[in-house]
Amino acid sequence: MAKAIPSRSENYSEWYNELIKRADLAENSAVRGCMVIKPYGFSIWEKMQRALDDMFKETGHSNAYFPLFIPKSFLSKEASHVEGFAKECAVVTHYRLKNAEDGSGVIVDPEAKLEEELIVRPTSETVIWSSYKNWIQSYRDLPLLINQWANVVRWEMRTRIFLRTSEFLWQEGHTAHSTAREAMEETTQMLNVYATFAEEWMAMPVIRGTKTANERFAGADDTLCIEAMMQDGKALQAGTSHFLGQNFAKAFDVKFLTKDNQQDYVWGTSWGVSTRLMGALIMAHSDDDGLVLPPKLAPIQVVIIPIFRNDEQLAQLSEKINPLIKELKKAGISVKYDTSDANKPGWKFAEYELRGVPVRLAMGMRDFENNTVEIARRDLKTKETISADGLVAHIQNLLEEIQLNIYNKAALFRQEHTFRVDTYEAFKEQIEKGGFLMAHWDGTSETEEAIKEETKATIRCIPLDAELEEGTCIYSGKPSKQRVVFARAY
Amino acid sequence: MAKAIPSRSENYSEWYNELIKRADLAENSAVRGCMVIKPYGFSIWEKMQRALDDMFKETGHSNAYFPLFIPKSFLSKEASHVEGFAKECAVVTHYRLKNAEDGSGVIVDPEAKLEEELIVRPTSETVIWSSYKNWIQSYRDLPLLINQWANVVRWEMRTRIFLRTSEFLWQEGHTAHSTAREAMEETTQMLNVYATFAEEWMAMPVIRGTKTANERFAGADDTLCIEAMMQDGKALQAGTSHFLGQNFAKAFDVKFLTKDNQQDYVWGTSWGVSTRLMGALIMAHSDDDGLVLPPKLAPIQVVIIPIFRNDEQLAQLSEKINPLIKELKKAGISVKYDTSDANKPGWKFAEYELRGVPVRLAMGMRDFENNTVEIARRDLKTKETISADGLVAHIQNLLEEIQLNIYNKAALFRQEHTFRVDTYEAFKEQIEKGGFLMAHWDGTSETEEAIKEETKATIRCIPLDAELEEGTCIYSGKPSKQRVVFARAY
Repeated sequence: MAKAIPSRSENYSEWYNELIKRADLAENSAVRGCMVIKPYGFSIWEKMQRALDDMFKETGHSNAYFPLFIPKSFLSKEASHVEGFAKECAVVTHYRLKNAEDGSGVIVDPEAKLEEELIVRPTSETVIWSSYKNWIQSYRDLPLLINQWANVVRWEMRTRIFLRTSEFLWQEGHTAHSTAREAMEETTQMLNVYATFAEEWMAMPVIRGTKTANERFAGADDTLCIEAMMQDGKALQAGTSHFLGQNFAKAFDVKFLTKDNQQDYVWGTSWGVSTRLMGALIMAHSDDDGLVLPPKLAPIQVVIIPIFRNDEQLAQLSEKINPLIKELKKAGISVKYDTSDANKPGWKFAEYELRGVPVRLAMGMRDFENNTVEIARRDLKTKETISADGLVAHIQNLLEEIQLNIYNKAALFRQEHTFRVDTYEAFKEQIEKGGFLMAHWDGTSETEEAIKEETKATIRCIPLDAELEEGTCIYSGKPSKQRVVFARAY
Repeated sequence: MAKAIPSRSENYSEWYNELIKRADLAENSAVRGCMVIKPYGFSIWEKMQRALDDMFKETGHSNAYFPLFIPKSFLSKEASHVEGFAKECAVVTHYRLKNAEDGSGVIVDPEAKLEEELIVRPTSETVIWSSYKNWIQSYRDLPLLINQWANVVRWEMRTRIFLRTSEFLWQEGHTAHSTAREAMEETTQMLNVYATFAEEWMAMPVIRGTKTANERFAGADDTLCIEAMMQDGKALQAGTSHFLGQNFAKAFDVKFLTKDNQQDYVWGTSWGVSTRLMGALIMAHSDDDGLVLPPKLAPIQVVIIPIFRNDEQLAQLSEKINPLIKELKKAGISVKYDTSDANKPGWKFAEYELRGVPVRLAMGMRDFENNTVEIARRDLKTKETISADGLVAHIQNLLEEIQLNIYNKAALFRQEHTFRVDTYEAFKEQIEKGGFLMAHWDGTSETEEAIKEETKATIRCIPLDAELEEGTCIYSGKPSKQRVVFARAY
């Protein structure tokens, strides 16, 4: 049996890294900060993509594709945008290599310098709004509801697979509207799409909220977000939806003819989720034995392991198992039948646990004779022997139950690690133990920054659906009308 | 009514450009050579992706994702590979911008220079084989069957939307095998997948063949390809599948333990198709009225246009049309119901013709009373009035018929423009008129290059399924055993 991965309590960070490696999800590449997403990891991402893409299309969006490269000058057009991204851009300066004269290999050809350097997109607002200028003339062209699946690059100094990488995969929605109200509705709608996806597909409860001015997207008037709690009590921002006001429309001069024949700047939104969700999925549910996947995102929902001593026994078992596989597939359940004899059943059990397969069936010769099967669920690590009759319906129910149980477990965890704190002393004590701290804040950037400086906690969001409550800021003692969510974050 | 697009006979090149613009498929971006794929164009590409991806998975491949950036030194490891790609690489040299001191905007920060410059991938063999070194230890790890959907960059001097752009989207399969034979079988299998896709989905007949040594992929021992004929008689390479031998295994030291306990280098393949297929699709079928789409790739298969004078009439028509739409959707047919009153029916007819929608239904008040509908097909430009009963089955058949007819038309065109030529005089005369020239060639690069130099015709491929035939080279008079396909090409 292979060595176990480190436990979460022992070393959470090492547990995360080792789990990613052992479950064959991804690895670092030869290029600093850029990851390779391995087939098993990518198949989970594909399931996320498909579900999200369907939701985007149901809400009226179409996909398109815009260039990887952005002229350097575009970035400067929106002042706060360039401020936010200039320091983490990869810059293309030349377009040709040539052989070094000393035979040492290839070098950059200095004569093939670009007239204007190009930025590898860190996000695409600028290049997209420069297109929208040509696409939008009148109110009849609005709303423009476009999404793009793409790779983006933000040159990060400290990287961590899935959570913070120099290149990552994401989707970025970019919409244009004729009124502020409609754009704000879109911003909210897409936040809700993300929240639904996080909760119903990833089985991960999230808080919907507004970012403070400090934490806003560079170029937005307002940033909405969903925040999830990881098992170490830290917060993870899982998706953002930005109300851009008329900022990019003004930067790129995108005007439209209104119904009453006026010229006005259009209103914009942008919203995105990324491969970061893979990190969230891992850290929200997995345990010391490996990955725990919600059935809706599991590339393999059921693994079947025959227990046999020779080919004859395997043939007998397969006679019973093959029709079952057919039935399961017909019911839309993805199933893997592992008949290899390279590894023992016990090794396979551990391996599929590591990979988070929700349901495991095992059948040996005694099961064969008794018409039974051993069924184990990954989330609770329970197993029982049940009749092989009516198995498909049983498994369908079980998958739903597991999906729900994983969600409930995460929701309970979050509840147990969410604290109302009313003094800065209590705040400082609790923040060391982790969790979400619901506390009053006076609404100023100064207080927010001071708390961050002293405790490494940030305001994750101002919850959208929280009750108003009169109180006083834990730091300044000034009046406050609502508790906000503080936490240390990824 | 908007101005017609130029006719193919008038100016084929302008026809192509204008069609792309008017059918809303794509446009040039602010970055030289990089295109924006607009929503309608992208929805066709998505259909291509889905069909191909399903075929890759059916043949046992999994998707993964590898970095956008390649260390410059990687490119040098395979000698002919660097030779082929060094001159068209975009090079990242710096990773930060800063504000210019004179207030002129942002400039590249000279202090943020990368230690080793990075290449934006022109193709991913090098970065993938550097990963495979860690993934492959023994024959049990083989075959490794991986595909990636990605953007790649090849810095092109003369660009043309879809056909030759500096950035394009593609898929690249990269597989590793324990024997040369198995790798060669994979190379052939994937060529056949491409040919099936081209013929059954794109309705575009292709010739399967082998490239000459001159036209081989840089780093391959053998390149197979599919070649299609465009309506101007030029050839377009629509997909390639490469047998890499042990070249990349040797360059990246990828060895495996064989069944008989030896160390050996693994055998590789790579294969790809790109957004170039969009160009092929347009040029293979479209006409002077716009795009002609095979139903299997049409984002909208049926458009329904109600003809009404007021809201009451529209309501009446909709009462009949809405249940029909439901039925069509149930039958898996994508349908658009265009009830807008911003444009007249005639304008809409022209617009959907431009966009290549295969079937158009129109219903006015007389149809409403007679229980009929006017049905028009895009490929033949015929229309008839038929009973509204049994319409779904009628449309299903019609879509199949259109798919077949588009294929047959292209096949007939190719047949009529394929010529057996036996003298260089006849060759030079015919090549000016276009088409595929089946001619004998002596097998030397010298002859191939001389013919190319003198006539701009290249050997598109040595057909895989052609009969052997003794003959003499049209250029050198030396003996030849098989005719090859010459053409001018995109």
